[in-house]
Amino acid sequence: MTHTGVTAPRGFAAAATTAGIKASGKPDMALVVNEGPEYTAAAVFTRNRVVASPVKVSRAALADGSVKAVVFNSGNANACNGAQGDKDAREQAALVAAELGLADGDVAVCSTGLIGDLLPMDKVRAGITELARALDPDAGSAAAEAIMTTDTVSKQAWAQRDGWSVGAMGKGVGMMAPSLATMLVCVTTDASASAQALDEALRKASKVTFDSLDIDGSTSTNDTVILMASGASGITPSQAELDDAVAQVCESLAQQMQSDAEGVTKRVTITVEGTSTDEQALNAARTLGRDNLFKCAMFGSDPNWGRTLAAVGMADADMDPEKISVYFNAHAVCVDSTGAPGAREVDLSGPDIDVRVDLGTGGPGRATVRTTDLSHAYVEINSAYST
Amino acid sequence: MTHTGVTAPRGFAAAATTAGIKASGKPDMALVVNEGPEYTAAAVFTRNRVVASPVKVSRAALADGSVKAVVFNSGNANACNGAQGDKDAREQAALVAAELGLADGDVAVCSTGLIGDLLPMDKVRAGITELARALDPDAGSAAAEAIMTTDTVSKQAWAQRDGWSVGAMGKGVGMMAPSLATMLVCVTTDASASAQALDEALRKASKVTFDSLDIDGSTSTNDTVILMASGASGITPSQAELDDAVAQVCESLAQQMQSDAEGVTKRVTITVEGTSTDEQALNAARTLGRDNLFKCAMFGSDPNWGRTLAAVGMADADMDPEKISVYFNAHAVCVDSTGAPGAREVDLSGPDIDVRVDLGTGGPGRATVRTTDLSHAYVEINSAYST
Repeated sequence: MTHTGVTAPRGFAAAATTAGIKASGKPDMALVVNEGPEYTAAAVFTRNRVVASPVKVSRAALADGSVKAVVFNSGNANACNGAQGDKDAREQAALVAAELGLADGDVAVCSTGLIGDLLPMDKVRAGITELARALDPDAGSAAAEAIMTTDTVSKQAWAQRDGWSVGAMGKGVGMMAPSLATMLVCVTTDASASAQALDEALRKASKVTFDSLDIDGSTSTNDTVILMASGASGITPSQAELDDAVAQVCESLAQQMQSDAEGVTKRVTITVEGTSTDEQALNAARTLGRDNLFKCAMFGSDPNWGRTLAAVGMADADMDPEKISVYFNAHAVCVDSTGAPGAREVDLSGPDIDVRVDLGTGGPGRATVRTTDLSHAYVEINSAYST
Repeated sequence: MTHTGVTAPRGFAAAATTAGIKASGKPDMALVVNEGPEYTAAAVFTRNRVVASPVKVSRAALADGSVKAVVFNSGNANACNGAQGDKDAREQAALVAAELGLADGDVAVCSTGLIGDLLPMDKVRAGITELARALDPDAGSAAAEAIMTTDTVSKQAWAQRDGWSVGAMGKGVGMMAPSLATMLVCVTTDASASAQALDEALRKASKVTFDSLDIDGSTSTNDTVILMASGASGITPSQAELDDAVAQVCESLAQQMQSDAEGVTKRVTITVEGTSTDEQALNAARTLGRDNLFKCAMFGSDPNWGRTLAAVGMADADMDPEKISVYFNAHAVCVDSTGAPGAREVDLSGPDIDVRVDLGTGGPGRATVRTTDLSHAYVEINSAYST
């Protein structure tokens, strides 16, 4: 397949270039352009109150339910750079708009990388000129590579439907936490869909995919997921059909992100049930997923269910402290808050660990969070990032 | 000084023994007895809803404001052992009471170690007999050693006043989090003080010492801090004098615990100010102290203030996202949410790192949390604990 990722649906072109922002000399800028005939769009952004300059620009661009292009750079987050950072992000959008004959407000901006260094705007300006020249309906894969930071593999997804499709690219490996993770995601579709329909599909999908990723409890200043529709297929799917296809590509990207999380040696899926509400179940699942003692035990393939109980016991969720049950890879290791026979012998040596916790109230609340173990590699990667 | 730690104040005897609970063959049981003439006491316990059996027993024993003895074991937390665990903890208290001619309700029980294994009660019974025989007014140091788990040093403190004193022993290295940490602490005084006065002094001291320790966001099922007064000095200090002396020993133990935290290479003190309330400042300080990306940066001596902003931006605290300032070791590294000149060159290579964050609202809220870095040794220690 030559048309992959964001350029799989009709009506989209992409480009990638090496502007020199990354010291490594790897590709570090990308552009995705919606060539129409329609230009509806929706987005979800970080919930962090400290937001990067590109997020401010993109929020403004998306406010009218339409964007025609998204420019990406990796290697520099353009976050916490004050008024100059805002000015630089606006200039990125304006330069793209000028190259493509668009209004400034038609262009969203996504940046990822180190926080607190000013963008090298001379390199960025030259890069944007290069990107505009290189636009290509086959460049989805190249664009996906150009947005990588500590990702070890590029991440794309595609959902084919009858006469229309959804494509996507994403990056994200660290700072993965509630409400997105450090991720940049661009989803495209050639379906015809209103901005409202796109917004609904994206919010539903994010909630059960990207929002369920909680790798290290950290939440980026730059998280952005943008969905653009070109209408080039001439087909208007039902909301349910759109929801389904968008959810499919988001699920694929979320799985790829979990598998490529910084320092991951185990993919850990935590499901909490038996509490009053889904929200409480999510609180408990996140509390466990962020507990370093639990995460270290997972790294050691150690069925240490005691730490599981100690962690969920601190969660903001209804529970019966004497009736909690824990299952590792479907083996009961703790029943009624007491160890089950053979619990210490459960085999957790594989790369996937499934953890299920029943908080014992009999309530209908249920939620799943995807996290990883806490490994030496995580410490190594994150102890020598900026220097 | 022959009389140290819990046996420094008059009216207390202690004992330690090797009952064989620990596979290492190191001392694993201790006893502290108040020989009077008074027997007032106060305690604070874990806020975890999953509580160990000994905590249940100790809560009941302390309910009347008096205990005469505390029995400790290390190597087994007796947590999550169901009805048998409760029965075993009650038996520990009853055996000590029988040996010493006390009522069962005069004895508190503290256990620390692995969660989820039943206590080897044959060994515990023999150990209690041994402890009762070995009671000695010089055994404070031996008792402090017998309650160690992964502690690398034993922890004692002493505050001498005019004619009376306060002594203490403690253990605690991992699972250190809000509301105590995995700690067992026994504080003794020969002052004459009502249970109410002791309770007030202990709560005040805990709030600014043990509660400010947040090593890894985990909170134990067993945390217990007990303060006992013998009145053997015949002196009744004022509440302020009592508060001060109790706070002094608690502060010393808290510092010792921070320095001995699992895998620590850096002691990190985080102060947050410039928000509406002290509680909000504490929320923000804890959020930062638990952020793994921040903690890894500290391990790497990396002045990565961007991660500091990203972490506090997610905290439940009033802030002006454009006016946040960050200081590392008193050097301004970020002013008005923008990097300060020379920020990347600040030297964090020493063992102590002081982090101050001003959230920029001008509000009076202020709080300090003591944490550590996230090191390879932390991962190593915690990935191979139960197996």
